[in-house]
Parts: sequence; structure tokens; C-alpha cells
Amino acid sequence: MLLTYDGFDYHGWQIQTTHNTIEAELEKAIQTLTGKFVKVSGAGRTDSKVHALNQTASFFSGADFSAEKWRAALNAILPADIVVKSVLSIPPFFHARHSAIAKRYRYLIYNKPYPSSFSPHYSWWLRKPLDLTAMRVAAKHFIGEHDFSAVRASQCSSPSPVKTIKELTITTVDTPISSLCIEIEANSFLQHMVRIIVGTLVAVGEHRFTPESIPAILQNKDRQKSGKTAPPYGLYVLKVYYHDQEIEWPPSTVDL
Amino acid sequence: MLLTYDGFDYHGWQIQTTHNTIEAELEKAIQTLTGKFVKVSGAGRTDSKVHALNQTASFFSGADFSAEKWRAALNAILPADIVVKSVLSIPPFFHARHSAIAKRYRYLIYNKPYPSSFSPHYSWWLRKPLDLTAMRVAAKHFIGEHDFSAVRASQCSSPSPVKTIKELTITTVDTPISSLCIEIEANSFLQHMVRIIVGTLVAVGEHRFTPESIPAILQNKDRQKSGKTAPPYGLYVLKVYYHDQEIEWPPSTVDL
Repeated sequence: MLLTYDGFDYHGWQIQTTHNTIEAELEKAIQTLTGKFVKVSGAGRTDSKVHALNQTASFFSGADFSAEKWRAALNAILPADIVVKSVLSIPPFFHARHSAIAKRYRYLIYNKPYPSSFSPHYSWWLRKPLDLTAMRVAAKHFIGEHDFSAVRASQCSSPSPVKTIKELTITTVDTPISSLCIEIEANSFLQHMVRIIVGTLVAVGEHRFTPESIPAILQNKDRQKSGKTAPPYGLYVLKVYYHDQEIEWPPSTVDL
Repeated sequence: MLLTYDGFDYHGWQIQTTHNTIEAELEKAIQTLTGKFVKVSGAGRTDSKVHALNQTASFFSGADFSAEKWRAALNAILPADIVVKSVLSIPPFFHARHSAIAKRYRYLIYNKPYPSSFSPHYSWWLRKPLDLTAMRVAAKHFIGEHDFSAVRASQCSSPSPVKTIKELTITTVDTPISSLCIEIEANSFLQHMVRIIVGTLVAVGEHRFTPESIPAILQNKDRQKSGKTAPPYGLYVLKVYYHDQEIEWPPSTVDL
């Protein structure tokens, strides 16, 4: 499934006994439709309040529905803030998370002296003007293969802190909810990695860190020395990449 | 004042005794701040649920505040869905509506087989693919000076139905809430004119009208023969134009 969701009212992806989650809603909807419980595997376990524009999730069901029937029926059952954009049948060895070869996240900042009138749920409002030139110099230091322990949550369970950031861009946009768009693509991510990198870039933009301090921050591998964790509601799962022969979404559904 | 607001929870601009309106909130906020009631004149009286990205409004107050103080203080008092982007002092002959020489509106459509997961409050969801080529041919027939009685609400009080549309564009966009953006600029507008033109263009896009039928629809001046009124929550006041010597907003505040 290719999914989009407004995560603001959910306690993240992963199923919990006490709170509402994206995974729980999907598993409930499939059970309502087919009568059988199946486990739904997401490409990533998004945090509480994190959104998705193109999240992927896989499951195995004995129900013999067309892709269009799956989509229409699940959307009729799911709450309005979780939407199935497309459904594809997958080979038995496919798993939304284990088969992923790269992911791309977007983080939206509204950098204006006034807040957005539309919703505070979709971007991080920062009132003071950020120094974009300094942030872009800092961004370059994150690109490539590094030990990212300095920007990793303490409870992160990833087997290795070494990841490769392929791209990190900071662009200005002009929308009612955002004026700055940070996108990060990597082969894989540590817990809170995007949010801590964004928090560190913002510290550079506010002249609390220099761009030149980033290499030492990474080398020290000390979470206490990097920036604060940016709030979750500015973060969006933008795209999950797979080997082309395994999965290809209809182009019209992968909108941003 | 340059204003942005999420109009979904308001009964339009104009003050009413029974319902909450944008004008009422602004007048209340100014009274809270200065202790005196003043009338606030908006450039246009938006309908219930219509939004604004750059609406203008003028008032005369004896309070001697700087522009920055007006903005910060009003934003501290106003509800979160009404935001003052900028304040300028104006000459005594200026009036937000009477001094306006042109206006531009935006209408957002989400033309996908699935709804937006983010909010149904910000665009008109149309599930069946629209014929953009036909809509663009139809759009050309609205441009120029015409008697727009065919696309005018029955209760419209404008002294003349003759208006000049300077521009009418239909562009594709790729955002989580919209895939189609219609913008209309005219010297002035009749009541519901934008929403009825959008409804008529959508009827063309759905092949219920031909593009070539538009000139006859306008010539007949019969509201019953044009398309239905598009829903209000897809509509945004995008910009109000004045003579340059009268008013010029700081460029950073006129975002879209």
C-alpha cells in the first residue's frame, strides 16, 4: 500500500495497547473488510504526530480483491486522515521495511514573524529569521557516510549508527504553512535522526552553532552536543525506494 | 492590515448578530487593545468558509502604536486562525474596499481518486479526472469585459454586472491538498462570481458542457444555465491591488 496520513492525532505508526496508531487503524480496516487479522508492516515506524505523503506498508492476505477494490474499500473504512493512494500485489519475499533501499523525508518550517493562520499541525513555526547561507554550509557536512550517533535518540535500536546521507537540501518555498523545506535522503535512518539534524541546522541558522562545528559534533558522537530534536509535526515521510523490479507505483499516485 | 485567515469555522467576513465572523473578531481585538470600538472595512466580504491569503482591511484609530506593535498585539489577541501579516498607516481618503483597483482569487481542487488525508477544509475534492484541455479552452471565453449576470448570485447587490476579467489561469500543482489551481483576476467581482465560474469550468471538465457553449451562457445572462456554485472552502482571497502610491506592503509579507 502507498499511504498518506495526517499523523497529528496519532501516537505514531506502531501498534500500542493504550493509544491510537496508524498500524492499528490499518489492521482494523483490513480485518473489517476481510474478516481476518493480518499484521501490517510499515516501511518506517513514524513517531507520534509525524505525517506521511508516501509511506509504504505491506501485508499478506488470502482475500482475492483487485488493487482498485482494496483501495476503495479500505478508504471507505479508514478514518479520513489515513488514505490509501494505491495498492499493488507483491512477491512473497517483499517486506515494506526490509526491502527498502532508501528513504526520503521532508521537514517543513514556517519562518515568519507571524504564525500560519491555517494550522499549527503541519510545520515548525520559527519567528526569528534563520541564516540560510550558514544552514546550507552546515548541511554539506552531514552528507556522505558517517557515524550518526550524535543525532540519534538514546533509545534507538538500530544495529549500526553508520548511515549514508545521499542528499540534504534546504529550499525556500512560499505556501500558507511553510517557507522553508528541508529534505534528507539516506539509505536508512536512526531514530529521531532527521529531527535532530533539523534541530542542529536550526541552531546554526540562529547562530548558536557555527557551520564549521558540525564535523566535530559528528566525530564526538555525543547526543548532548548536537541541537534539540525538532517537533514531530513538521516531519513527513516523502518517499520509500525499492529495487525497480520489485515495486513500481503508478506515477500519478506519488504526489508530493 | 494585510490578513490571512482560515475561514472554515467562520460565517464569512461581515458582522452578524448571531454568528462568528472575521470582521467581528477583528473589531473585538481592536477594542480589547485600544478600549474603543472602530469599524473595520474589508476589501471584500468573503462568504462563510472562504479563506484569505492576503486580504486587506482598513480602520481609523486614535491609538498611537507602531505598525509592529499593532501586528504583534492584535495577533496576541486574535484567535489562531486569523493572523495579521502586516500593518501600514494609511492616508485619510483610503478605504480597503473603495480604493481597491483589482483583486485576485485562487480556487483549489484536489482531483484524485482518493481524498486528501490532511484536511477536507482547503480544497474541493473531485474524484473523476477533469479534462484540463477543455477547461482551458472554456476559460478563455470568460476573459475580457462581459456582462457576468450568468455567473452572479441572485442576491448580489453590485450596481453593474459588467466586469473585466484580466486573467484566468488553470495550472496543475502537486501538493497534499490540491492538484489543480484556478486563479482569476478582475477589476471587481460579483457575488459568487468566482465560485460559479469554477463550477462552470468543472462542468466543462466533466464534459457536461462544451467549451464552445460558454459565450452563449454569458450572452443569455441566465444563472440557471451556468454551472453550480463551487463549495466555498476551496476559495482564497489571493491579493488586493491598489494604486502604488497609496499602499505598498513589505514584499516578504505577501506570500502565497
